[in-house]
Amino acid sequence: MFYLIGLGLGDIKDITVKGLEIVKQCSRVYLEMYTSILGCSLEDMQEFYGRPLLLADRDLVEQGADEILAGAGESDVALLVVGDPFGATTHTDFILRAKEKNIPYKVIHNASIMNAIGCCGLQLYKFGETVSIPYWDETWKPDSFYDKIKLNRLHNMHTLCLLDIKVKEPTPESLMRKRKEYMPPRFMSVAEAAQQLLTIVEKKDALERNTVLNEQSLCVGLARVGQDTQQIVVSTLHGMRATDLGGPLHSLIIPAKEMHPLEVEFLQQYAANIKLDDYNH
Amino acid sequence: MFYLIGLGLGDIKDITVKGLEIVKQCSRVYLEMYTSILGCSLEDMQEFYGRPLLLADRDLVEQGADEILAGAGESDVALLVVGDPFGATTHTDFILRAKEKNIPYKVIHNASIMNAIGCCGLQLYKFGETVSIPYWDETWKPDSFYDKIKLNRLHNMHTLCLLDIKVKEPTPESLMRKRKEYMPPRFMSVAEAAQQLLTIVEKKDALERNTVLNEQSLCVGLARVGQDTQQIVVSTLHGMRATDLGGPLHSLIIPAKEMHPLEVEFLQQYAANIKLDDYNH
Repeated sequence: MFYLIGLGLGDIKDITVKGLEIVKQCSRVYLEMYTSILGCSLEDMQEFYGRPLLLADRDLVEQGADEILAGAGESDVALLVVGDPFGATTHTDFILRAKEKNIPYKVIHNASIMNAIGCCGLQLYKFGETVSIPYWDETWKPDSFYDKIKLNRLHNMHTLCLLDIKVKEPTPESLMRKRKEYMPPRFMSVAEAAQQLLTIVEKKDALERNTVLNEQSLCVGLARVGQDTQQIVVSTLHGMRATDLGGPLHSLIIPAKEMHPLEVEFLQQYAANIKLDDYNH
Repeated sequence: MFYLIGLGLGDIKDITVKGLEIVKQCSRVYLEMYTSILGCSLEDMQEFYGRPLLLADRDLVEQGADEILAGAGESDVALLVVGDPFGATTHTDFILRAKEKNIPYKVIHNASIMNAIGCCGLQLYKFGETVSIPYWDETWKPDSFYDKIKLNRLHNMHTLCLLDIKVKEPTPESLMRKRKEYMPPRFMSVAEAAQQLLTIVEKKDALERNTVLNEQSLCVGLARVGQDTQQIVVSTLHGMRATDLGGPLHSLIIPAKEMHPLEVEFLQQYAANIKLDDYNH
């Protein structure tokens, strides 16, 4: 059997009881750590599980399905992923590869950022399409996520913005070489995301800035959701640009213009300098 | 400390290791079972946790916050809820009541239907606003959820439809009496949901039926997501009307018209009689 096990978002003890039992009984257990990160070290996890873990980096997960799935028809193999197994396309693809090989599989669900962001008090059912904000570089500045935020805003839906993660990215110089060299990991902060959004907004005309998004629009910054050091800050986009929420991972929410009174009351806890009741956002 | 602990969707062992440790150490533990249901009995849970549980029914959760929170400033009290604690507005409200009383709180996240529906292979980030389909009766047939599905369809987003649950609903006759009597619990099936959707669609004009939704449109029926008896079926809305997925809970998804090839490949597993590759939905 091949098990795809979600680890949740917080620490070592956010694995489910069922997940832990499976981890202990498998012949091989892989840990995938590049689509997201957990607030604990590999050593802590190995000690807690009482067994060694095999690290599955980006190359192995994306190209090494054969290696990971080897023998999973006869004995039990598990792949541990941060959050829920269906949070990343790579894992859906992985299950299809198992099916192709006639290997039975089982998924152990857990919390992921897609449902845990409810912790800020915004109701999950009112979120529209989720967007990803990618790191810009000198020549590549994609902004198609803005149109999705706009659509959600115009139809009174919240938007969750997932912020870019660059882990095990080969340096441009080493791309063609046999032995790749990797850049240090980077995790986009809410300040960087707000800055990129404002750069896009500043090019729009006055009407659009009034009806869709401007630097006075409210946003919610979240850091390390589900961990003990979780932080939530409600601010204007302008203010978020200068907000430091500490270590990764960060997420940004652009709330709908009209919120339920309960949503407003909950968000107010995190809005130090803004009175949300009469804020015209 | 007041703990709000998510139980996930499957069975007794879907609680996290952290959640289980807290349950064992609390002075009082309440179990809320009316906003959703789990695939195990109260007795099984008490035996697994090695402690008694207090049942929190709808009246207690909605009006008895004082009773549940009593003493949580000095000792530890937990409220267990199916799925993730932020899945229902009631729980968000509960946290605000704790804050009012200066009772510190902690949330233990878990999987909920809002992220576990990824199990059908449709990518979570492509879901638009979630809708709830309520039971109709003779005089009350609300259909505002249709407009949300329409908006999602026109902008190429999937729609998750949460289906109505009626648990501990007072009978109309006993509403005014001191001692309420309750109707047997009801859980809407995918067949009932498809029937209600088609009733709405049949009143629309030909243009709308061609561009938005008609009886040949694809839908995904899911039952008991996260449990061992989980079932997923891909069918037309017409076919779903006659599909029996067994016991509760059921959910229905109306997919976007354009899907990613990986989404199509994954859904194909559950579409016995339809070749999705060249299906014009």
